[in-house]
Amino acid sequence: MKKIYFENLNEYLEKEITIEGFVDNIRDLQYVQFLIVRDTTGKIQVTIEKNQYNNKLNEIVSNLSNESTVKITGTLLKNEKVKLNGMELIPSDIIITSKCLENLPLNYKDSKSALLDTRLNYRFLDLRSEKNILMFKVQTCMINAMREFVIKNNFTEIHTPKIISAASESGAEVFEVKYFDRKAYLAQSPQFYKQMAMCSGFEKVFEIAPAFRAENSNSYRHTTDFTSFDIEMSYVDSLEELMDFEEDLFITGLSSVKEKYGEQIKKLFNVDVIIPTKPFPRIKLEELYKELEKKYGFKMDYECVGDMNAESEKLAYKYVKEKYGHEFVFVTDFSAKKRAFYHKRKNGIPQGADLIWKGCETTTLALREHNYDILCQQAKEKGLKEDVKFYLEFFKYGCPPHGGFALGIDRITMLLLETGSLKETMFIFRGPDRIEP
Amino acid sequence: MKKIYFENLNEYLEKEITIEGFVDNIRDLQYVQFLIVRDTTGKIQVTIEKNQYNNKLNEIVSNLSNESTVKITGTLLKNEKVKLNGMELIPSDIIITSKCLENLPLNYKDSKSALLDTRLNYRFLDLRSEKNILMFKVQTCMINAMREFVIKNNFTEIHTPKIISAASESGAEVFEVKYFDRKAYLAQSPQFYKQMAMCSGFEKVFEIAPAFRAENSNSYRHTTDFTSFDIEMSYVDSLEELMDFEEDLFITGLSSVKEKYGEQIKKLFNVDVIIPTKPFPRIKLEELYKELEKKYGFKMDYECVGDMNAESEKLAYKYVKEKYGHEFVFVTDFSAKKRAFYHKRKNGIPQGADLIWKGCETTTLALREHNYDILCQQAKEKGLKEDVKFYLEFFKYGCPPHGGFALGIDRITMLLLETGSLKETMFIFRGPDRIEP
Repeated sequence: MKKIYFENLNEYLEKEITIEGFVDNIRDLQYVQFLIVRDTTGKIQVTIEKNQYNNKLNEIVSNLSNESTVKITGTLLKNEKVKLNGMELIPSDIIITSKCLENLPLNYKDSKSALLDTRLNYRFLDLRSEKNILMFKVQTCMINAMREFVIKNNFTEIHTPKIISAASESGAEVFEVKYFDRKAYLAQSPQFYKQMAMCSGFEKVFEIAPAFRAENSNSYRHTTDFTSFDIEMSYVDSLEELMDFEEDLFITGLSSVKEKYGEQIKKLFNVDVIIPTKPFPRIKLEELYKELEKKYGFKMDYECVGDMNAESEKLAYKYVKEKYGHEFVFVTDFSAKKRAFYHKRKNGIPQGADLIWKGCETTTLALREHNYDILCQQAKEKGLKEDVKFYLEFFKYGCPPHGGFALGIDRITMLLLETGSLKETMFIFRGPDRIEP
Repeated sequence: MKKIYFENLNEYLEKEITIEGFVDNIRDLQYVQFLIVRDTTGKIQVTIEKNQYNNKLNEIVSNLSNESTVKITGTLLKNEKVKLNGMELIPSDIIITSKCLENLPLNYKDSKSALLDTRLNYRFLDLRSEKNILMFKVQTCMINAMREFVIKNNFTEIHTPKIISAASESGAEVFEVKYFDRKAYLAQSPQFYKQMAMCSGFEKVFEIAPAFRAENSNSYRHTTDFTSFDIEMSYVDSLEELMDFEEDLFITGLSSVKEKYGEQIKKLFNVDVIIPTKPFPRIKLEELYKELEKKYGFKMDYECVGDMNAESEKLAYKYVKEKYGHEFVFVTDFSAKKRAFYHKRKNGIPQGADLIWKGCETTTLALREHNYDILCQQAKEKGLKEDVKFYLEFFKYGCPPHGGFALGIDRITMLLLETGSLKETMFIFRGPDRIEP
């Protein structure tokens, strides 16, 4: 049976239909019973008069509990007195397909009625809220539009291994896995493998997959198990080309979201989805810090030397918002000391950028060093040459110039809908103290 | 600079263009030098006469090695004497963008020239072969068509946690992770979480993500770290509905592949991509075994009691191929003893099926038991009630009837292109003895 979505009920007026959904509310009055049934797209009122013909139905409804699921056959009628969509279903049959056996331990309809921790314990109930259902539709829409964009641009999808033999990139902050009789690790990112694809001549690849970070951090934007949207492309001449590509990627994703869900997002999240204009503001780190000092009295601390921190990211947003009316800014010319060894450098400056959106870093973009000797040298400088030996090998046998970036899709969703925390945004959050449910 | 794909070179005849790619071959003759340059879509001949005007170019080419990468500007001319596409590029500038520093340790152009193990050690070179480049394009095309199909059908994409607190499903064959100061495990599948989404009212979800199996098995179709395409949908009334949906999913994927890559697959893999007709043959396990015995003298061993094994899967393919001219078959009515506790049963028979394609199991489909009490009972029978307590909780507060299935996308690609082994098919293979590169 093809499910009828409640947002399309208008098409079925005066017809006999069968609907399925959750019981959102029950009002059992003296002469009439009202059921509100919901699905992911809307709600419908089911009206059952109490009379001799409806005996069986009346009894079913009397025994029904909120949050049970039902399958109801009936005739859909226009009724302007009904506040909900001006229509009601007059049922001929009601089947309880599942019964809610106990009172809900969480009032998911009011996110303020419980501590966040309680909500996360009962995430399967918390997710029932209209906002949460919408959030995942929005994420699906945004990421799929971006994915279609890269596929249209001839990217190949790859699936790189998540169990790896050596602690990748930095050596720190990886989870150890017992792999039969030896030690292995969980991949922090597909960085080395997506670059390997460049060495294999794949030209352009993407991957959407989990990445694991053993960071003992409890900030609003950290998690141990997140979903990374990785991009790597060959024959890139300049950082500008990469930034330009990422602009188009965001514009594509946000346009799709705005068109399909803009109004609902405004209604439920009170957020305006803004399609950014091209090019996004671009500024060198040093210049940015001068401006922040001048405008807001910003003082650099040790974290900011050649790098950014949470505070300067927030102020950078304030700055571009005021100066350009823009939500995004690319910050370039970080210090080589603060960037990965595989970033290409020009006069010692890493050819990369961070994209800050609404005051939060969303991406590090960079051209990659593809010259074997220079790459070995840069790895050595960071004390990594032995750890990354297998990766360095990739570059011995020819490799096109390339670059890429990665987005955390949970973080993007958090920023898009301004939920304030990954804990609110991820399907199931994972942190140092949370591994359940 | 927008890359010119070599398959489109016809559009640039008589024009000055810049191309980029790998040096596929060099012939340095007395009066002329020929370079063959390749990208992921084709090859082009670059012709450099040896004369005084070309001194600089001649010198560059003399020092060039195969598998280096180049950027060449020149004029593209028609020349019917050139066997390769009847055209050649006459260069005005050649830049070596990366140099192949050593002879390749692997002749990736001839897969028979090295042991599979050597090829896997040098997978980054092995992947350069025309067949392998095509394989990942085909996989991208197939999976993306399937994904677009589910998204068009209102599925929400989810990303479930891969680090979990309890060994899922069966308790066996999971990898242990050191998670800060406690033990955790890698998810064998998103089964419990995709069903959780049903309890949360998500109606239809899908996920494409890694799944981990600590099976010490070295067969052609096993790996420890594979990519699973998971589907779960609510308000499904019957197994037939699920099978029907999976048929459409395969037909969509295969049609897309055939249209875009059918000819190339025939040329490089000698495989005909066949779009299956609907409905796929469906047969009960007991009936199948009777037929296999009658036709091929098949004798059941202990593995086959209520279940299938590699041999009976192969014969099932032979049977449907002969009887229906079909590559697919759904086998139903397995024994409850051999199926997971969460499969819904009717008169004791699990309401599920295995889809066998070309003699290999690709999917287990099933309706799920969504009644809390029955589910608890079935978990108890399998001795799992305590391990899956958190999962059982999901069903206490209402949950629509639902069902789903999962495909291993590596396995599907292996079967589609008849590569014979996952080791040949996965971007990077992982097995009990292989965790590198």
